[in-house]
Amino acid sequence: MKEIATFKNKESSSPKLLKSLEEAIAKCNLKDGATISFHHHFREGDLIINAVMDVLAAMGYKGLTVASSSFSEINAPLLKHIKSGVITGLEGSGCRGELAKGISAGLLAKPMIFRSHGGRAAALAEGTLKIDLAFIAASVSDSFGNAAGVYQGQLPQGVSPSYCGSLGYAKVDARYAKKTIVLTNTIVPYPNVGLGIAENDVDYVVLVDQVGNPDKISAGATRTTQNPKDLFIAKKAAAVIAHSGFFYNGFSLQTGTGGAALAVTRFLRDMMKAGEVKARFALGGITAAMVQLHEEGYIEKLMDVQDFDTTAIASLAKNSNHFEIDANQYANPFDSGALIHQLDVVVLSALEVDEEFNVNVLTGSDGIIRGAIGGHPDTAAGAALTVVVTPLLRGRIPAVVERVTTLCTLGDYVDIVVTDRGIAVNPRRPELAARLERVGIEAVPLQYLRHLAEKIAGEPEPLPFGPRVIAQVMAPDGNLLDDIFEIDYE
Amino acid sequence: MKEIATFKNKESSSPKLLKSLEEAIAKCNLKDGATISFHHHFREGDLIINAVMDVLAAMGYKGLTVASSSFSEINAPLLKHIKSGVITGLEGSGCRGELAKGISAGLLAKPMIFRSHGGRAAALAEGTLKIDLAFIAASVSDSFGNAAGVYQGQLPQGVSPSYCGSLGYAKVDARYAKKTIVLTNTIVPYPNVGLGIAENDVDYVVLVDQVGNPDKISAGATRTTQNPKDLFIAKKAAAVIAHSGFFYNGFSLQTGTGGAALAVTRFLRDMMKAGEVKARFALGGITAAMVQLHEEGYIEKLMDVQDFDTTAIASLAKNSNHFEIDANQYANPFDSGALIHQLDVVVLSALEVDEEFNVNVLTGSDGIIRGAIGGHPDTAAGAALTVVVTPLLRGRIPAVVERVTTLCTLGDYVDIVVTDRGIAVNPRRPELAARLERVGIEAVPLQYLRHLAEKIAGEPEPLPFGPRVIAQVMAPDGNLLDDIFEIDYE
Repeated sequence: MKEIATFKNKESSSPKLLKSLEEAIAKCNLKDGATISFHHHFREGDLIINAVMDVLAAMGYKGLTVASSSFSEINAPLLKHIKSGVITGLEGSGCRGELAKGISAGLLAKPMIFRSHGGRAAALAEGTLKIDLAFIAASVSDSFGNAAGVYQGQLPQGVSPSYCGSLGYAKVDARYAKKTIVLTNTIVPYPNVGLGIAENDVDYVVLVDQVGNPDKISAGATRTTQNPKDLFIAKKAAAVIAHSGFFYNGFSLQTGTGGAALAVTRFLRDMMKAGEVKARFALGGITAAMVQLHEEGYIEKLMDVQDFDTTAIASLAKNSNHFEIDANQYANPFDSGALIHQLDVVVLSALEVDEEFNVNVLTGSDGIIRGAIGGHPDTAAGAALTVVVTPLLRGRIPAVVERVTTLCTLGDYVDIVVTDRGIAVNPRRPELAARLERVGIEAVPLQYLRHLAEKIAGEPEPLPFGPRVIAQVMAPDGNLLDDIFEIDYE
Repeated sequence: MKEIATFKNKESSSPKLLKSLEEAIAKCNLKDGATISFHHHFREGDLIINAVMDVLAAMGYKGLTVASSSFSEINAPLLKHIKSGVITGLEGSGCRGELAKGISAGLLAKPMIFRSHGGRAAALAEGTLKIDLAFIAASVSDSFGNAAGVYQGQLPQGVSPSYCGSLGYAKVDARYAKKTIVLTNTIVPYPNVGLGIAENDVDYVVLVDQVGNPDKISAGATRTTQNPKDLFIAKKAAAVIAHSGFFYNGFSLQTGTGGAALAVTRFLRDMMKAGEVKARFALGGITAAMVQLHEEGYIEKLMDVQDFDTTAIASLAKNSNHFEIDANQYANPFDSGALIHQLDVVVLSALEVDEEFNVNVLTGSDGIIRGAIGGHPDTAAGAALTVVVTPLLRGRIPAVVERVTTLCTLGDYVDIVVTDRGIAVNPRRPELAARLERVGIEAVPLQYLRHLAEKIAGEPEPLPFGPRVIAQVMAPDGNLLDDIFEIDYE
């Protein structure tokens, strides 16, 4: 019985497993001018996007549009490929750092397209965004492309993959792209199913040295804040939520990126325990604070499109009510059952809020791109209660302004703005103001907060925008929401 | 905090949840001549297919093509809709009972199309089979269409859904159909994710009184046999497998329908335990015998496209390494990673085997349709070792014949035929015959078995086929494999 003959089906015989990325790209028949995609689950720890673009540049490609679910500071090296004409278009939910400065300076041939996560899922489903070749950075994959961001089985000693957790954004890319290449540094036994991307959506698997650094996932916008002002705002926001009428046994919750927004969960915990208020589910980017509440029985289900820290990643692998969802299930605005439509409370950050409750999360007060839409407009539109948290001023820069520099989320979808110097309730929701007033939480007009900010910091100067559109912000439904103009910032 | 106001997002406000099936069908804009689909996970216990067809008939529809993953004896009532012109086309992997007799008698306007499960998945993926409206019988669903065949949470006392387990065939229907209606008798809390069909693939949910009877899933072709001849053949097949060279630590296994085929697992169990031979995975239709081996640690993963009994259904809900897979992952022949291509050993039944090792699983020796292709040709082509089990005779009817009545699986894909009167090894695989001979298992030519059968039963009479093609058998790759002609059987 130990006499093992040759088998038709050896793992090593997978025709999908290729030794070089160049070979995989060539087999996918990639052409100049094509649209390729990436995902940003490794965030500031991503080691795939830049590396793949270097390979494509070395292969001589020109005129590529790069659609990533988002770009981070780590993607600054893409600038050289923009300057050389390898990249002529970009599309994503956000952009930061030197790459973003280059876009704002007008280096990119075509206007960059910003879409929310739900808007991207819809654009993929409807064919507005067509991906010719998707690159998926996977923590593990079998040789046939069953790829995931965590692994639930036993691995040989010494093998320790780089885990990123949920592959929620990558899943829709793989599903809709014409061709898909998985890059991983850990091949696991076939069949690696249950989480992540199914082999049917994958054309080739390439073994690489590294895919990402999980420790850097919780850097930048997803850091755990210790800033006293952030914590003060988060505590106020938690109190507002608790008395909003939407904090009931069975409610649902999402917190967006940004220190104060993420910190709200920590303060809600005490209130949930005191009132025995349990959440049906937490949605979106999952954090250690949410995992703690889940494991304590205060959040029934974690609906995870992306993990914001290593605790959340570990939870996805071990907790059976921690579910990986894709961007469609998360936030496709055209699907009445997408989870955003079932969301009671969302807490979101802002770079600017204006007197009409409009929110800018993309451009700084200097007009330069430095943020991400993420799921902001998706969840704001879907949630029953949308709370925006922001300091009144960042240093000497007002965050409450007359008119946002870039319109990302319509004020119609924002219910309450919580700052360190007062809260404002959208006049569309008088019942909210009344409920808060009853427990002694007084609201002020946003105009008052704007004037207060200007009194402290002075009226902002008009920005020196040039005439050229260097980026466009698309609403979740695919319509143009705003243009971003070039700016001379030297 | 207990002052609950009105919420935007009440469960009851789902726009997808409709009170009547007629309303859902009308909203899906179904037209005469359309193709509709069903799935057969409830097998002989299905209560949806006939009921929906009665509704469509009452609504006045004509000229429909009904594509179900399979038809069973319980579907005999469809005959009246064929006679009245409501149904003019049928497509499925099999057909049995009075409905099948009606097809063979030429009652259906167009030839019935038979496809294997993998062939259907490929036809859906490639657009050869276009479904206008899919009907999904679901054990549970939330009001937005997250639907499954089992439920993993707590249910209120007195609520006991009818579980069918994996929705593997239904998943691809929902994914590719233009419109999808879920029918269920148990609405569970949103979001019901993790198993089954995602809301994004569902247009409407209709609450019905009953969907199916789980106790009848293991009737007919999936019964547990006590027939001594079946058990004798199964025991021989297990011995053949154990000495085939494909019974190694880490092998993979599938057993098809039919008493002897399903019983092989029971005999393999002793050999697996004795040799400490563990399987990487068991594939396809999952049985209680496989669940037992899984729970004893002898089968690592259960890859489940369909459950053959209530033990398997319960296992899907509770065992974390028991995975629901769809028909694409299971058997799409065009996907190099589909699980069939990773299969070491498959045990399959036959109505007839001929001297070229070709197999018929569709028509009886009387020429009348009475079986199902299922995953037969898919797994036979994919597996490293394909074992076909059959009695030499059924009553006085030879099962080993000169030429099969209907070609369903090419002899090129069949390696060994095991009967109660001897085994035959395909001359293409001399190494198999040699390995078996070394342990004293002598093979005989199929011609010998055919002559032995004829000696006992006499040479069969030619069948009285008419000139008209009443059904067509498609190979997994979509090409025509064989025609089935009308037969006058009165």
